[in-house]
Amino acid sequence: MAFEVYTSADWDVWDKQFRRYFMNALSGPKPLFLMGTKHSSGAGNLGLFSNIMHVGAHPPTVGILFRPLSVPRHSYQNLMEQKQATLNLVSEPMLHKAHLCAASFPEGVSEFKEAGFSEEYIDVWQAPAVQESPVQLGVRPVEEHRLEVNQTVLVVLQVDWVKLQGASPEKDGFLDLQKLEAVSANGLDAYAGMKPVSKFLYAKPGRPVEAVDSFIP
Amino acid sequence: MAFEVYTSADWDVWDKQFRRYFMNALSGPKPLFLMGTKHSSGAGNLGLFSNIMHVGAHPPTVGILFRPLSVPRHSYQNLMEQKQATLNLVSEPMLHKAHLCAASFPEGVSEFKEAGFSEEYIDVWQAPAVQESPVQLGVRPVEEHRLEVNQTVLVVLQVDWVKLQGASPEKDGFLDLQKLEAVSANGLDAYAGMKPVSKFLYAKPGRPVEAVDSFIP
Repeated sequence: MAFEVYTSADWDVWDKQFRRYFMNALSGPKPLFLMGTKHSSGAGNLGLFSNIMHVGAHPPTVGILFRPLSVPRHSYQNLMEQKQATLNLVSEPMLHKAHLCAASFPEGVSEFKEAGFSEEYIDVWQAPAVQESPVQLGVRPVEEHRLEVNQTVLVVLQVDWVKLQGASPEKDGFLDLQKLEAVSANGLDAYAGMKPVSKFLYAKPGRPVEAVDSFIP
Repeated sequence: MAFEVYTSADWDVWDKQFRRYFMNALSGPKPLFLMGTKHSSGAGNLGLFSNIMHVGAHPPTVGILFRPLSVPRHSYQNLMEQKQATLNLVSEPMLHKAHLCAASFPEGVSEFKEAGFSEEYIDVWQAPAVQESPVQLGVRPVEEHRLEVNQTVLVVLQVDWVKLQGASPEKDGFLDLQKLEAVSANGLDAYAGMKPVSKFLYAKPGRPVEAVDSFIP
């Protein structure tokens, strides 16, 4: 099969935008969430993020990586000022509006209004959630690490509440993201839905890998 | 629409496995890679990882989160001893074999042999790559952060080479992962392929979100 090998001898001389697109696609399909925060003026803010990873189940925690803080980062600023935010899973019906939230709006402008999402407030939580999202998480920052390699900032978020719409966990706790029409990000400006999910038995040496019956597409 | 809200009052009393499955699915579709390393005995090692995120484009870097080092972690040990590894994107034809690599094999056993993957060596790189993978990255550890919340370990990996098989970057640098049949992980034991990718114009305030023509599915 045809193949090509690239090294820094190639990418050091690539156009910056070409390199950005290429490198951002290399890390595979990425989770896609809208972070909801509240600006000190009261305006709801939404930022689109794909640099998110599971950190732990107990306490439930996720990590989010912010670009270097050399320019204003509204989501980061609001998150740190208010010590809370929401993460809202992006589903297929939300995709066009969600992509618009990646645009650079002036500080204090509400991306909820600009993109056409509905603000929703859960109990006493002051950061707005996206009503249209099937999986909303109420999160607060508990830890921060500055990465030396490029000054990006990893913030560990603890999950205080979860709201599910249109789906419940299966009897083993599993949540089928394809049924919720979850979207993954491919690089910077591209996205894909999920094909039906295949669920396997827990992997053990010597045991053949078999699909769990109820999840065979 | 029916919905349900969960808090720690719920999950603190859930069965541990139920909680693990639930929380691992909440962070959305995740990238899926096999990390290839070499054990000091010479045996090739493969570990299956979904806790991976893009860190930066220049230098090209990705982050990987390891479970707490309270028990032996073969991939981590080999990575730190040899100061190099490969990351191999999991594609649909590789999925059954890849899932088996999540099993706990004894130290020094080659998951390449157990799962039936072919070891491949690129130039002078000593860590083995997975021949069957369409996107292979040669990586080395450059930075490490212990997360206080649960003692997981974030390792930042710098990419030294990239091998692509069966696809090339588009003229803007973009790499269509769906054409490579990339798989995403849904929680712990479930996976999905990607539907055809939709690529949008760069988001700007006031500009309608439009698909880039050549990528309309």
